Amino acid sequence: MDFIKKLKIDRVEDGKIEAIEDSVIAEYPLTIFLNGEEFVTLLCSPKGLEYLAIGFLVSEGIIKDKGQIKNISIDEKEGHVHVDLQDESLFTKKLFGKRTVTTGCGKCTVFYNVLDSLGTRPIDSKLQIRWDKALGLANELNEHSAIFKETGGVHNYALADQDRILLFQEDIGRHNALDKIIGQSILSKLDLGDKILISSGRVSSEMAIKTIKSRIPILVSRSAPTELAINMAKEFNLTLIGFARGNRMNIYSGGERILTD
Amino acid sequence: MDFIKKLKIDRVEDGKIEAIEDSVIAEYPLTIFLNGEEFVTLLCSPKGLEYLAIGFLVSEGIIKDKGQIKNISIDEKEGHVHVDLQDESLFTKKLFGKRTVTTGCGKCTVFYNVLDSLGTRPIDSKLQIRWDKALGLANELNEHSAIFKETGGVHNYALADQDRILLFQEDIGRHNALDKIIGQSILSKLDLGDKILISSGRVSSEMAIKTIKSRIPILVSRSAPTELAINMAKEFNLTLIGFARGNRMNIYSGGERILTD
Repeated sequence: MDFIKKLKIDRVEDGKIEAIEDSVIAEYPLTIFLNGEEFVTLLCSPKGLEYLAIGFLVSEGIIKDKGQIKNISIDEKEGHVHVDLQDESLFTKKLFGKRTVTTGCGKCTVFYNVLDSLGTRPIDSKLQIRWDKALGLANELNEHSAIFKETGGVHNYALADQDRILLFQEDIGRHNALDKIIGQSILSKLDLGDKILISSGRVSSEMAIKTIKSRIPILVSRSAPTELAINMAKEFNLTLIGFARGNRMNIYSGGERILTD
Repeated sequence: MDFIKKLKIDRVEDGKIEAIEDSVIAEYPLTIFLNGEEFVTLLCSPKGLEYLAIGFLVSEGIIKDKGQIKNISIDEKEGHVHVDLQDESLFTKKLFGKRTVTTGCGKCTVFYNVLDSLGTRPIDSKLQIRWDKALGLANELNEHSAIFKETGGVHNYALADQDRILLFQEDIGRHNALDKIIGQSILSKLDLGDKILISSGRVSSEMAIKTIKSRIPILVSRSAPTELAINMAKEFNLTLIGFARGNRMNIYSGGERILTD
């Protein structure tokens, strides 16, 4: 499926109207069925759907590793992904029904005390990275995305080690892009404990929670974090870097993992 | 409460580390209680909380006008807003439990066929606006937001008539900013049928749905719409303008409401 669609539109410039062909970003409804039951519908960019489905289930705390998955199948035409788990009793509607129900950007199912209630411990990784390497990865992310440049409509996340970007995902939804990274990591059995997450966009509390739950020790964003995200990062010892652009960056939390000159 | 918080952070520039005071954007958890029952928790910017609560309830289809509201009270310290409706039986957990549950940016509870199933009819407003007035409103929105310039972290929505911006709201969540506009309009008993909505950010299907449900005939964004949002705008005869910047704009739908030279 195409990330980008070509459409005929009218452009108005200085009062003159002209019919042109323009690129617009696709928005694709993906319904996840879990053990045969309809679970959730996500609006996303139509790539990496398998990664998105698995990453979403990990982020929601439904599964933790690849071994729990019996089968994944995708029906692109219908916009359905079916995930069957080894444990068919793991998901019950009753459990899910208790969650906080939300709708959008800056709203969330998970919460500050969710991390506590899940017994989440601070990240104790000894990983360190030189400031210029972290900055280099953030600048590399920016160059990586051709789609953003074409339509101005997607968020990018990458997973990197000290030297290079390993995984790259983009999506119209910031949450989706991160879930795709997490899903791809789980399916590839990548260890996240010594990796660096790179983000093109703002870091809200939800992004911080997803990162902390994934045990990734360093999150580098080219954009701004929120105060709540910073507080969470401090509490759970996540290294949080923002505005990593050009020759500088801000360290909001966990500066001991960043080596300066 | 403050939209912006001052924090001490470390800035790294060319490998040199310096402690500075920086502005970061607040992210505030607001829990809506409906007729005494916990309904939803939103993460938002801590201003216009009453508008957000009412706008959210309108967007979710729970209420339609101010007359249905018996009382609103806010406990800012706890982050609670209590909305009591005239009809105490209107909200049942059972009804709400059936909705699609989602979490984030680019994901939604409402859907393409939701508009159909709600019996939503195409917008038949005869409102027209000159291209340069629409562009002027979009440029004015941009000048309006001081916070974005300070922290790079918020989305802006405005409601305008042909001549000027009437309402202006900003929030870390795009959905929240629009819900605040809708809530403020409802509480002010503004007629939305002859107004223009101006957006700083991307128009996804959820934004299009909220606009169509509110019966606002023209939506002007400074940024990109998604293909799904364009398709919905066409189906429900919403005039959808994107990339309204400087001296030009793209017309994706409903061009008969835009007057060119």
